[in-house]
Amino acid sequence: MNFDLVIRNADIATASERFVSDIGIAAGRIAALGERLPKGTREIDASGFLVLPGGVDSHCHIDQRTSQGLVTADDFESGTISAAFGGTTTIMSFAAQHKGQSVRAVVNDYHSRAEGKAIIDYTFHLIISDAGEQTIGQELPALIKDGYTSLKIYMTYEALRLPDRQFLEVLDVAGREGAIAMVHAENHELVDWLTDRLLRDGKTAMRYHAAARPALAENEATNRAITFAEAVGVRILIVHVSSDEAMSTIRRAQDRGVPILAETCPQYLFLTASDLDREAFEGAKYCCTPPPRSSADQAALWRGIANGTFQVISSDHSAFRFDDPKGKKVAGASAPFNRVPQGVPGIEVRLPLLFSEGVMKNRITLQQFVSLTATAPAAIYGLAQRKGTIAIGADADIALWDPTREVTIDIDNLHDRMDYTPYQGMTITGWPTTVLSRGEIVCQDGRLLARSGRGKFLRRAPFSR
Amino acid sequence: MNFDLVIRNADIATASERFVSDIGIAAGRIAALGERLPKGTREIDASGFLVLPGGVDSHCHIDQRTSQGLVTADDFESGTISAAFGGTTTIMSFAAQHKGQSVRAVVNDYHSRAEGKAIIDYTFHLIISDAGEQTIGQELPALIKDGYTSLKIYMTYEALRLPDRQFLEVLDVAGREGAIAMVHAENHELVDWLTDRLLRDGKTAMRYHAAARPALAENEATNRAITFAEAVGVRILIVHVSSDEAMSTIRRAQDRGVPILAETCPQYLFLTASDLDREAFEGAKYCCTPPPRSSADQAALWRGIANGTFQVISSDHSAFRFDDPKGKKVAGASAPFNRVPQGVPGIEVRLPLLFSEGVMKNRITLQQFVSLTATAPAAIYGLAQRKGTIAIGADADIALWDPTREVTIDIDNLHDRMDYTPYQGMTITGWPTTVLSRGEIVCQDGRLLARSGRGKFLRRAPFSR
Amino acid sequence: MNFDLVIRNADIATASERFVSDIGIAAGRIAALGERLPKGTREIDASGFLVLPGGVDSHCHIDQRTSQGLVTADDFESGTISAAFGGTTTIMSFAAQHKGQSVRAVVNDYHSRAEGKAIIDYTFHLIISDAGEQTIGQELPALIKDGYTSLKIYMTYEALRLPDRQFLEVLDVAGREGAIAMVHAENHELVDWLTDRLLRDGKTAMRYHAAARPALAENEATNRAITFAEAVGVRILIVHVSSDEAMSTIRRAQDRGVPILAETCPQYLFLTASDLDREAFEGAKYCCTPPPRSSADQAALWRGIANGTFQVISSDHSAFRFDDPKGKKVAGASAPFNRVPQGVPGIEVRLPLLFSEGVMKNRITLQQFVSLTATAPAAIYGLAQRKGTIAIGADADIALWDPTREVTIDIDNLHDRMDYTPYQGMTITGWPTTVLSRGEIVCQDGRLLARSGRGKFLRRAPFSR
Amino acid sequence: MNFDLVIRNADIATASERFVSDIGIAAGRIAALGERLPKGTREIDASGFLVLPGGVDSHCHIDQRTSQGLVTADDFESGTISAAFGGTTTIMSFAAQHKGQSVRAVVNDYHSRAEGKAIIDYTFHLIISDAGEQTIGQELPALIKDGYTSLKIYMTYEALRLPDRQFLEVLDVAGREGAIAMVHAENHELVDWLTDRLLRDGKTAMRYHAAARPALAENEATNRAITFAEAVGVRILIVHVSSDEAMSTIRRAQDRGVPILAETCPQYLFLTASDLDREAFEGAKYCCTPPPRSSADQAALWRGIANGTFQVISSDHSAFRFDDPKGKKVAGASAPFNRVPQGVPGIEVRLPLLFSEGVMKNRITLQQFVSLTATAPAAIYGLAQRKGTIAIGADADIALWDPTREVTIDIDNLHDRMDYTPYQGMTITGWPTTVLSRGEIVCQDGRLLARSGRGKFLRRAPFSR
Repeated sequence: MNFDLVIRNADIATASERFVSDIGIAAGRIAALGERLPKGTREIDASGFLVLPGGVDSHCHIDQRTSQGLVTADDFESGTISAAFGGTTTIMSFAAQHKGQSVRAVVNDYHSRAEGKAIIDYTFHLIISDAGEQTIGQELPALIKDGYTSLKIYMTYEALRLPDRQFLEVLDVAGREGAIAMVHAENHELVDWLTDRLLRDGKTAMRYHAAARPALAENEATNRAITFAEAVGVRILIVHVSSDEAMSTIRRAQDRGVPILAETCPQYLFLTASDLDREAFEGAKYCCTPPPRSSADQAALWRGIANGTFQVISSDHSAFRFDDPKGKKVAGASAPFNRVPQGVPGIEVRLPLLFSEGVMKNRITLQQFVSLTATAPAAIYGLAQRKGTIAIGADADIALWDPTREVTIDIDNLHDRMDYTPYQGMTITGWPTTVLSRGEIVCQDGRLLARSGRGKFLRRAPFSR
Repeated sequence: MNFDLVIRNADIATASERFVSDIGIAAGRIAALGERLPKGTREIDASGFLVLPGGVDSHCHIDQRTSQGLVTADDFESGTISAAFGGTTTIMSFAAQHKGQSVRAVVNDYHSRAEGKAIIDYTFHLIISDAGEQTIGQELPALIKDGYTSLKIYMTYEALRLPDRQFLEVLDVAGREGAIAMVHAENHELVDWLTDRLLRDGKTAMRYHAAARPALAENEATNRAITFAEAVGVRILIVHVSSDEAMSTIRRAQDRGVPILAETCPQYLFLTASDLDREAFEGAKYCCTPPPRSSADQAALWRGIANGTFQVISSDHSAFRFDDPKGKKVAGASAPFNRVPQGVPGIEVRLPLLFSEGVMKNRITLQQFVSLTATAPAAIYGLAQRKGTIAIGADADIALWDPTREVTIDIDNLHDRMDYTPYQGMTITGWPTTVLSRGEIVCQDGRLLARSGRGKFLRRAPFSR
Repeated sequence: MNFDLVIRNADIATASERFVSDIGIAAGRIAALGERLPKGTREIDASGFLVLPGGVDSHCHIDQRTSQGLVTADDFESGTISAAFGGTTTIMSFAAQHKGQSVRAVVNDYHSRAEGKAIIDYTFHLIISDAGEQTIGQELPALIKDGYTSLKIYMTYEALRLPDRQFLEVLDVAGREGAIAMVHAENHELVDWLTDRLLRDGKTAMRYHAAARPALAENEATNRAITFAEAVGVRILIVHVSSDEAMSTIRRAQDRGVPILAETCPQYLFLTASDLDREAFEGAKYCCTPPPRSSADQAALWRGIANGTFQVISSDHSAFRFDDPKGKKVAGASAPFNRVPQGVPGIEVRLPLLFSEGVMKNRITLQQFVSLTATAPAAIYGLAQRKGTIAIGADADIALWDPTREVTIDIDNLHDRMDYTPYQGMTITGWPTTVLSRGEIVCQDGRLLARSGRGKFLRRAPFSR
Repeated sequence: MNFDLVIRNADIATASERFVSDIGIAAGRIAALGERLPKGTREIDASGFLVLPGGVDSHCHIDQRTSQGLVTADDFESGTISAAFGGTTTIMSFAAQHKGQSVRAVVNDYHSRAEGKAIIDYTFHLIISDAGEQTIGQELPALIKDGYTSLKIYMTYEALRLPDRQFLEVLDVAGREGAIAMVHAENHELVDWLTDRLLRDGKTAMRYHAAARPALAENEATNRAITFAEAVGVRILIVHVSSDEAMSTIRRAQDRGVPILAETCPQYLFLTASDLDREAFEGAKYCCTPPPRSSADQAALWRGIANGTFQVISSDHSAFRFDDPKGKKVAGASAPFNRVPQGVPGIEVRLPLLFSEGVMKNRITLQQFVSLTATAPAAIYGLAQRKGTIAIGADADIALWDPTREVTIDIDNLHDRMDYTPYQGMTITGWPTTVLSRGEIVCQDGRLLARSGRGKFLRRAPFSR
């Protein structure tokens, strides 16, 4: 019972509990919980704070190249720093195969981008865009065995999307070898056809981004993905669900016992399509895919969060600077909506936004907050009892939240490499003030205390079927 | 008030009425209804009979070449004779474009197959399998103007199916020019993947036809087709719905106000997947696409017929002889399920089966029977008030039904060119004994009274949007 | 072929047809339809008009005493005159049993109110509010045999409502003897509890009428009524459905094959709860039960009309004058909402409103209009082929509509005994200009041509199960 | 860090976690969790066992008088002993008001029945059957303040049921004062009417119990209860849901965001209506209310357990001996179904049945098992972090499960006062071998180690709204 660190009087919430305890940390892990634990080498008094597991952001795009040749604004250094300041202690990013590439080579390259940079722990999902015989028969089985146990399938984007047959093959190998598949669900050809018509009619403004990618397209693809999962007999997770329609389709699958998991993101809870309609190029700041929808959709998503339809809330941090020729303005400030890099930042504000609008406004309980943002994403992707919880044996990834702190979101106070945030000016209540990763304080009261490169890659065991 | 023919004391049912009247016919059309009409040149006493509009079979494959190079067993002579003996007086068959063909050339060729042969009136739907610029931009607009106002889209079959983008283009031109689209809804790639796995595992027997084309695949494609219709803003009709799942998806679209029409066929009401499981090659007799499902699906379809989810019941007569190297045995009697020509005959028994099991067993009213089998298909495809009804001005296409006649279905008594019927041995109640086309008696008491070639092609006006 | 009257060149619509024909009328019935019928004693040229079956208003309250001791503004004279000017040629009103009364005596009394007054034909539904042994065991079987084949059950109103057990008993006797039950579905105790709370809190204004009778209360009772119908195994018709919720509950029952019929009324398509919120006592003009709902409910009801969830649109004409101590002001102009007589007039404008907003705006077809307002209500209540259609043998109840006539609704031009209409000032397109009842012209170009008392009571045969 | 007891090497599951730890217990509470805790006064080695929170059985009838004057077979001594041997360490039983009684007096009487007898902790729900002014205005507010924060409402049983108005009043006071209401949902009048008809037709055998209380009756009442909860704005919990229909109604409420909680019981997962149909009087052993349903309902309930529709699985232990004139045979062995005391025992086998068929057969996770049977019922009824969990500060109510132990259920080995179990002969896997209540071992390896009366009453704080 020798502790490197003891957190005293912690008002702890987990995915199902709320209790007061000291936390004893040794060798980076939680070694004891209890009243009046013996003295540690260091001590923190948590009185007045909520003590929560560090967040797990299971969907963010860090140092990723787009098919247009751009690179996201954040690399593993700035991305993980920003995450940590927002209370997140684990991120999952994407090693993206492009057509013709070896997935293994992509993974190796991606490791080299992360190493030496990350300040918190991380792991990779594999984006599969070319599911030929080599990928299906050799690379994926080997990679899954090596601990890359999550795959992502795109149903849209010319450069990334899999045809239905390859989609089925990837699900099949995932099920057989013990990986889980994430699905970006939009019907590509419908989006394409609508886009062509809009452009043909001179409808190029940002607002038409919403018209080009309607809920219909999302719902269709969601239903198709569910059909394939059901046919193959595997679990899948539908990422960034944005509409009542798609959510309802997922719910119906859950009703009849099909194990479909679902994720939504802050942009679908706090932005709407009308944000795209701001003057001049401003709308580009809110361009992400799927697009923000209506306030009725927001209400529906909150219901789905509360009633268990969703298991995960991630950031889908996909950051391109606004006033930047390597960012949103790559094709110029008068580019049509479909030439603008898609995505919004959110890795730092994900937890505070949801805490303030979800927990403080009684839409969800504190335990649901912890589950949705930390425990469940960890478990779904193979990090159960290691990340996303405060329990004996888990990594001591912990955030001390000041539930009374009022913060007005301002890009100047955020730690990513962006020049805007879509939530600029929102005032919220509650912010993490001290964040620990494996027992080390990485941020405290706005100061960064961790060195780059201390974050480690998280190898995961294949799932047993 | 000079009538070529008067039918006396007719107990008439239409899609919404039931009344007793004389029917005065002049120049092939219904000129008068009334009590004690003046004497006609000829007279028929209808006492004891039900007098119904002749049936409209809006989905049958006559003299059609398959992608395997086969030709259906029935040409326009045998097909229309068989139809007429079963009380049907209008058929709609398919001019099928194959990849690379001109639709106009296909239509011209198809006219030459029908001319001089048909004994009842007919029209063509256009199967579009190659929706390139020429088809979309020129041929379809011209053909629709010329009266070919219904198109069929296949979502499965390598040789026929349209990719999603072309599907959207065809719906768009149909909506713009005034045609309606029919959709064969099954997810091709899922069927393909399942088929490959079954064959790989040596599962080649007929019973695996049902496993290779599950309700999941039908439901997925149905939902996709509805999405496309909704996105383009057009009505479509989903043909040969076979499963509770697909029907429920259609019903939900109707619930929210999307104008989706739906058709089912006798094979989905009277056969089940277990029929595929008969010994040796016998199962091939019941192989059609989609496959027959379960008795629970049958019950669901009957509910959907009764509550208005379905508007149309057609035969999907697609006839290949059983013991014939140009029929089901084209690939031999030990061919795997996917090498057997698909389809079952039914053009003659469609109405009697539905009359006996639907009307006589109180599942539907007599008016619903008339609507589902005659009035609605005529109206949906542009023949309202011309075919499928007994009303002033309509063609005098009329069937006198003996509602008490018991018939045991036997291939020897049917008039198509088949060597089997999947309904062999079923005993039913009710049969049409006299059938008129444009005021001429074409069949009476089992005798054929019409000459080949008297049937006329039905040109239809484009729909106004 | 001697006709008392021939209507020439009639552009006729029925529930399933649209055709041009002459109509030959003899002895008050339709004796012939046809081209160039022989000359009649009288002739009408219908060129330029639509010729429709006279409307059947299956739900109106004429000369009915309320439990507060009031009598509705219209008796059988003014009520039928008003109906006829609006194109309606058959009405169904209510013989209302109050607790302790003999139903037979009520019926006899009600006959005496109608005789000598009505100008069009009529029949009675029986309101059963006291289903004791005498009513169930003796009176109802006898009355049903005598042709009173429709019963109405109230689930609300202290004076009228049946407890659940008696509800079941009435359904049971209806099913056994061949009657159909109509149900007013609102949960009485919930309404009562809400009303008490509102009054206790001083919320007495008309607007609270909507809060006191929420869609929740309607939906609950609708579901309960459906449950009872299902348990007993009988058809029922839910009257005046006002909310999306209740409609969806009905739709789900239809989905699973339970034969539930449904009716809505113009007040739920054209008024909203905000109408109750007009200054001073004005809101009382719009007070009916259930109350008008939201515009979202209106849209839902239109969908339900179009997709077949509803079979009937009636007026629920329940007329109390506004500025009248025997009308809405019986308890004074500052009476709380629950002391105001409930109901709005609508017997004359029902058809024009629906024609203009339904048919002319393409929400429904002309055939659906005829079915919903004439053919279906006639058939549901046992008058098939006698009323509500233009077919051989049917009563010659016919309306000639001028589809181009623009009318601004004004109480001064209506023919009931009211001093207001809730639709005052609405401009609509289409109005019936000539109306025939059993071959006699009862109204023409705004003139009344019929004498009081020519209308006849319609005895109906019990339904066979 | 002085422990009265340390459990070593515990493989612990909570509602969201699974981890290995020692457990330090002091003063009856869990004082520490951790690796290598200091030595305790006593020690238990948990190697090879699963260590779970003791179960919370939130619905059982102990020493309760029926309206027929019977008393349940188990008092607080035998009931709690039986519970403990099955791994349950908290029970919630019922203080039942009968018409005219003071609830306070009933509670006082019920305390006197429990004191000195229980070996584990317990609390009471209040059954309210007479919600007059005194009850609503005075007794309930006072009792809720005193810690009786859960009420039960019966919608059936002549002696217990509340009319709808009183139901609303009870919900209202519960919401205002901070209690939660449980609802037994069956439509009394429908059950009554069906029962009368069955008895009238001589259908008295046990099998007719199922026909008299169909899913329709349960579903109707469930929907009504939900309506009332929604109208009043309170949470409710629907107890012992037995049918797919009722579950689906609950699910739909959850879909639209209404906070409805739901419970099911082993009898609905393991028995079916066909059990009622056993020879002679045997069926009486399975008579409970609602009755067991079909295997399709069982499958639906399992789906609902897995997908989160249900939060609680209780025993509804309502035990009447079979071969006993004070039990099932009170009205003789040829009594009609409605004269037989309702209820089945299950307090001891609840957890083992669900563990074996749920967890071991992968229908639910171990965490779901803990949540459904311990954590959630504790939290819902106001004992969060005190009972039903293994967390710092919670009572040390802990069960050590041997997950490999095979047990064939036999009444001779159970500890209640019954002479039968409906699960006789079922072989299951997994049983709790050591059970602790507040740190004391109450049962171990089949031996009872606790004295009667050591169990304490659990006062609960009112909920804040």
